[in-house]
Amino acid sequence: MKFRLYNTLSRTKEDFVPYNPPFVGLYVCGPTVYGDPHLGHARPAVTYDLLFRLLKALDYKVRYVRNITDVGHLEHDSDDGEDKLAKKARLEQLEPMEVAQYYTNRYRDAMKRLGVLPPSIEPQASGHIIEQIELVKQILNAGYAYESNGSVYFDVDKYNRDHNYGKLSGRSTDEMLSATRDLDGQSDKRKSYDFALWKKAAPEHIMRWPSPWSDGFPGWHLECSAMSRKYLGDRFDIHGGGMDLIFPHHECEIAQSTASMGHEAVRYWMHNNMITIDGRKMGKSLGNFITLEELFSGDNELLDKAYSPMTIRFFILQAHYRSTLDFSSEALSAAEKGLERLMNAMAALDKITPSDKSTVDVSKLKDECMESLCDDLNSPVAIATLFEWVKVVNQLHDGSQTLTADDLESLKSQFRFVVTDLLGLVPEMEKNEEELIGGLIAMILDVRKQAKEEKNWAVSDKIRDELARMGVTVKDRKDGTDWEIK
Amino acid sequence: MKFRLYNTLSRTKEDFVPYNPPFVGLYVCGPTVYGDPHLGHARPAVTYDLLFRLLKALDYKVRYVRNITDVGHLEHDSDDGEDKLAKKARLEQLEPMEVAQYYTNRYRDAMKRLGVLPPSIEPQASGHIIEQIELVKQILNAGYAYESNGSVYFDVDKYNRDHNYGKLSGRSTDEMLSATRDLDGQSDKRKSYDFALWKKAAPEHIMRWPSPWSDGFPGWHLECSAMSRKYLGDRFDIHGGGMDLIFPHHECEIAQSTASMGHEAVRYWMHNNMITIDGRKMGKSLGNFITLEELFSGDNELLDKAYSPMTIRFFILQAHYRSTLDFSSEALSAAEKGLERLMNAMAALDKITPSDKSTVDVSKLKDECMESLCDDLNSPVAIATLFEWVKVVNQLHDGSQTLTADDLESLKSQFRFVVTDLLGLVPEMEKNEEELIGGLIAMILDVRKQAKEEKNWAVSDKIRDELARMGVTVKDRKDGTDWEIK
Repeated sequence: MKFRLYNTLSRTKEDFVPYNPPFVGLYVCGPTVYGDPHLGHARPAVTYDLLFRLLKALDYKVRYVRNITDVGHLEHDSDDGEDKLAKKARLEQLEPMEVAQYYTNRYRDAMKRLGVLPPSIEPQASGHIIEQIELVKQILNAGYAYESNGSVYFDVDKYNRDHNYGKLSGRSTDEMLSATRDLDGQSDKRKSYDFALWKKAAPEHIMRWPSPWSDGFPGWHLECSAMSRKYLGDRFDIHGGGMDLIFPHHECEIAQSTASMGHEAVRYWMHNNMITIDGRKMGKSLGNFITLEELFSGDNELLDKAYSPMTIRFFILQAHYRSTLDFSSEALSAAEKGLERLMNAMAALDKITPSDKSTVDVSKLKDECMESLCDDLNSPVAIATLFEWVKVVNQLHDGSQTLTADDLESLKSQFRFVVTDLLGLVPEMEKNEEELIGGLIAMILDVRKQAKEEKNWAVSDKIRDELARMGVTVKDRKDGTDWEIK
Repeated sequence: MKFRLYNTLSRTKEDFVPYNPPFVGLYVCGPTVYGDPHLGHARPAVTYDLLFRLLKALDYKVRYVRNITDVGHLEHDSDDGEDKLAKKARLEQLEPMEVAQYYTNRYRDAMKRLGVLPPSIEPQASGHIIEQIELVKQILNAGYAYESNGSVYFDVDKYNRDHNYGKLSGRSTDEMLSATRDLDGQSDKRKSYDFALWKKAAPEHIMRWPSPWSDGFPGWHLECSAMSRKYLGDRFDIHGGGMDLIFPHHECEIAQSTASMGHEAVRYWMHNNMITIDGRKMGKSLGNFITLEELFSGDNELLDKAYSPMTIRFFILQAHYRSTLDFSSEALSAAEKGLERLMNAMAALDKITPSDKSTVDVSKLKDECMESLCDDLNSPVAIATLFEWVKVVNQLHDGSQTLTADDLESLKSQFRFVVTDLLGLVPEMEKNEEELIGGLIAMILDVRKQAKEEKNWAVSDKIRDELARMGVTVKDRKDGTDWEIK
């Protein structure tokens, strides 16, 4: 099956042709781990998870690298001053990596709940400083960067004479000049659109490493160029990220790769569109910021109730990744109902009795869904197809259609493949399962109590024995009945 | 409450006095992530998790660092040769970090199941090469190391003239000489007991970084010295690990710190004893190697059945960390029964009816357990105390003792604190919970079916409504009844 995907670089859908089939190298920009994972993290994670699953289903051997941006900009309390700081024990000081670890763990947990498979490698920017320093040296040697006051900047004008800075975003340097504001440390730069490859650390800057130019830290754009090259090679297949990263981040990545190697690294650039909340951009300052934990627990005043991780996943998959996606309680409730219908159909499949003839041809479910996904990850169309098959399941269930045992088995396995393996949707356990079990047992013991009152020992003993068979031990006491699960 | 712990350095129990209270720095040697987590990983993880929990209960602010050893010794297939290798695309080659990521994820998942809290920072050795190179430079500058053929070795004789190499393990260099075998690259060393700080990489060695001496990789002992210093400071409180690490690993760490800083870094050295299996050392070559996953699933011929993560945790805590611990099916079964009794008591607590007077003094449960744990983490004594209280719970339950509502509340909260917060033991959900729910609902629907057959609509409707209240929707169909959980 041919896989076509939209390449931001060419602004067209292209046939996917990997450099070294069956190997595929996929790099996706991961989270900055100095805050709780939020809605904005869920969309790219689910989008590229779908791509990862699809590529594997197409029998490619995928190495999927998603980085952790942990080189943060935390600073020591400026009140402390340098001298006072030097006297403080290490343990008393803020440790950026402790903060980064905390949020990395939170991110990983949230991704797991969303059914997002762990990438093959999850490299940390702070763990690849040597590789970044080497890259700066190469760009300096190639003449596309200059040192200024302990920092190193990329020379956009020089690069633009030989190559094309702006080829991904379609921006010209003239536009960039008029759009840039005065920034911190800008005085060291020749042009406002030049970007930092290495920054000399101010005294209060906590994260710092020795380098040939200064004690400092790498510029943000550098980590992805260095880590993708280390793990995927000089040329690799797909680089993904949110649309907001096209400029400057990915534009700078292309410039860094081209400046250091003489050619670009990435063949297909993929970008997911943004999310909005009730039609507006999400932002802390806008007061409509929702973390994933708040979404899962319902603990945010913008939410009418909690939405489960699978509902969020399904909601994201219902839209095409290149469309904007608007979160609202209405839309989430609709997704919840849709997912429920799908999951009910999955459960109903197990209750269908096979017949001696098939009245529907079930051979195409998987292929139809795969075809939609192979058309630039068109998950909404794949899901619509799936719902046509939900109707069939309901007809099979009410007896208006029938399947032979073989066809039924094929339908089940295709459903499982598409729903579980490809879309990554799994049935969710109720939070309050234990409560439910307790409630059900109480109901049964009530029936038994009544039977005992009616001296119907046969029923009372039968209930006790059936419960025991299920691992529920019943102990009668003077003032009631205890039970425990073995 | 005074906390005393056994210091391997002094071979005595000492009062615990942190350098900068309320801060405590704790460093523990973590896993090498080139294999599946096994029994040998569970013991230190649970031991230092208990320490971490106890220190927090004593109101210390603990920064707990546990490293990931991912600088491995994987090599390219030697058949490939250097030339052929250079022609292979990066993606086609073995990538050590992909292997390391896989086993790191497996380790984290297993630790989570064992109730082991994530450490404050989990640094990777491969992410701290710069810090390790800086440390080598300092040791070279101090004159305690020499360069040889692109590698750098620690000069044990020179160090031993000024300091004491062997102070932790009690070994003398004479003994070491007679004990050492010829090793790879040994010819570059002056003495067989000298150890590598930096190794020049052979062509087939995959993991390598540039350094002032060669493209190579750090010696194994270096990472812990470098990372503990980075995150905990020049002097910190506790360093833990398995007893097998005393020599050479921890002895070398002391030498590296002293050589580079002029003083030791660690105040208390803690070592957990080893595990055996049916009385023998565990080892792949001995054929008695059990991974944690095999233990949890029962899928190993040495096991009569599966043992849950909490059973393993409880089993480890039942022994003192400085005693050897022998795994056998009998011992695990006994631990399983013990844990069950404890968990049943926890559940029974919720069913006790308060009385208007208390016949037992429940004020001391927590203090008694804390005192045992503060005596060098004496978890077996703490657990024995807990079981005295399990007897009390059973007496309260059968009515032979009574408690007022306040005392009952206090007993419950002390139990929760000791069992859940300190020992980290939580009730485990049955694997087959869904099955159980299905079975219970089927039983209830059977009762309803019978009621309907007897035209007892009141009972049949009542059952339907009660189920609906619990979120179980019942749908009657011609040929039976469907149900689903909302």
